[in-house]
Amino acid sequence: MFTSEYLRELTDKAIASLGGTPEAEKLFEPVRYIMSIGGKRLRPVMCLLSCNIFRDKIDEAVMPAVGIEVFHNFTLIHDDIIDKAEVRRGSPTVHAKWGPDQAVLSGDVMAFVAVECIGQAPEKTLPKALKLFNRTAIEVCSGQQLDLDYEKKGVVSEAEYLRMIELKTAVLVAASLKMGAIIGDASEKDQDLLYEFGRCLGIAFQIQDDVLDTYGDTKMFGKKTGSDIVANKKTYLLVKALEMAGGNRLTRLRKLLGPGNNDPETKVREVRAIYDELDIRLKAENLAYDYFNRAFQALDQVSVNAERKNELKQLAVNLIGRVK
Amino acid sequence: MFTSEYLRELTDKAIASLGGTPEAEKLFEPVRYIMSIGGKRLRPVMCLLSCNIFRDKIDEAVMPAVGIEVFHNFTLIHDDIIDKAEVRRGSPTVHAKWGPDQAVLSGDVMAFVAVECIGQAPEKTLPKALKLFNRTAIEVCSGQQLDLDYEKKGVVSEAEYLRMIELKTAVLVAASLKMGAIIGDASEKDQDLLYEFGRCLGIAFQIQDDVLDTYGDTKMFGKKTGSDIVANKKTYLLVKALEMAGGNRLTRLRKLLGPGNNDPETKVREVRAIYDELDIRLKAENLAYDYFNRAFQALDQVSVNAERKNELKQLAVNLIGRVK
Repeated sequence: MFTSEYLRELTDKAIASLGGTPEAEKLFEPVRYIMSIGGKRLRPVMCLLSCNIFRDKIDEAVMPAVGIEVFHNFTLIHDDIIDKAEVRRGSPTVHAKWGPDQAVLSGDVMAFVAVECIGQAPEKTLPKALKLFNRTAIEVCSGQQLDLDYEKKGVVSEAEYLRMIELKTAVLVAASLKMGAIIGDASEKDQDLLYEFGRCLGIAFQIQDDVLDTYGDTKMFGKKTGSDIVANKKTYLLVKALEMAGGNRLTRLRKLLGPGNNDPETKVREVRAIYDELDIRLKAENLAYDYFNRAFQALDQVSVNAERKNELKQLAVNLIGRVK
Repeated sequence: MFTSEYLRELTDKAIASLGGTPEAEKLFEPVRYIMSIGGKRLRPVMCLLSCNIFRDKIDEAVMPAVGIEVFHNFTLIHDDIIDKAEVRRGSPTVHAKWGPDQAVLSGDVMAFVAVECIGQAPEKTLPKALKLFNRTAIEVCSGQQLDLDYEKKGVVSEAEYLRMIELKTAVLVAASLKMGAIIGDASEKDQDLLYEFGRCLGIAFQIQDDVLDTYGDTKMFGKKTGSDIVANKKTYLLVKALEMAGGNRLTRLRKLLGPGNNDPETKVREVRAIYDELDIRLKAENLAYDYFNRAFQALDQVSVNAERKNELKQLAVNLIGRVK
């Protein structure tokens, strides 16, 4: 069995070997840049760990795993244009560095570099791997659309929020794991269980991320806490607070979200106070733990020796560890 | 054998049947829009005609042919953002209608809808069809990059110009034809000959387009002549004129291209006068005819009965007809 650390290095090596066409050098500069400024390579590592559950030889899964990482970074470039984000992983975003036109075009080419990597799946698994990847990519775009729609919408229900993060974030984690299982020749049932493991894990992570943005330790979390509140981002916390608050409290909350609240620190403090009054943090953490539990239940049912699932389980547990 | 007209209708029907996800309705509105505002469906019709050369049953080529058309329209949406074009085929562009953010995202989803269609190629031809499509998509992005680079570059050689239009335009026509041949189970040699037919045809069309923009009949051509000159677009005509003009004439031409030429009619008339002095139109038409001839030579060598190639030949001849 391979360790996550080894698979991360393997992924990095494969990413470094991706060639650009020397004819259009400028097209690939932003591609190399976004792929090099970090990221935990979580999705490819999960893909490879999932494959490794079913077979010892995982070489054939490396390029498809890289394809998923390239796709993920493609969405980051285009999302950052749309969100007008200037900083990503502590570095300037692609459109901040090269302008939005270049960011559109270099993102586009990454979409096809990603498919090219997926296309290197073994021939007998290619139809299924490609179908999974395409369906997932279309779902991720749909999730980003819902996110944009919801920013403009007054009331978003908890169910709508959960479906949005499922599409925008969780299905790609799920597809990474299922991709590994497909290439690892797992049974249909095991493929689906790993998909469910990833789907629940992805939803749990996103809820956890929402909690950390408001309650996390800035140093540990690596980004300034409260940024979601300042931006009126429809996080789980805000959606839930808007659903639960009534009377005076709702009026206070709506006023805080309205225009004219120019002091971010006051806004963060006061919105957080409302969350605290409503016990929102606990509700969010409980929901995240529910999803973590569902994830592990799915993994437990995968029909191989518990030992073979250890590394994947450990990786997920370490990620939960962030919340504490 | 099927006629181009029948295959155009078949393509339109298949396009109309493409489903969107009801969950993110707004994502697919611009997709349906761009696919519905016309276009000659040249690429899918060529793909199907090419398949039909080798077999009577062409059903399996329909979705891959549609995939190429979806990809083509995806590039139009993103190119229009980059070029800040407001009108396409007489209608507002997607970003003019829905804003650039929506145009980025709806374009993105089309990239994967396109791959999804290509993914419906018969399993035994899928690896080859997918590889061809991906390589071509990456080349098209590279061609758009070169086009952007060349707009900012003082001197562009004829060879650079030709390679740029080959990547930006011709390889997709070539890939359409080769895709049909792959799915039609043609020999490698015939596949390559059809690629070469499309490549030369695509280059010829683009040069012809450049000529028509400056010398075409506005009514017949459907867009205002002289727009390339007004925009200082690096067409074959301008690249060649800058290469050939010397002394006073070069000074005159550079002055016309410089800032401060606010009257478009005068600019078009005077640049055209320089083209005429240098016989640029004739040179361009000769080069286009050279490429048309090379295209037909390749088609002639395809190892089937001449009769089976008639419809494809006729389509190409009709397209040449535009220039006269």
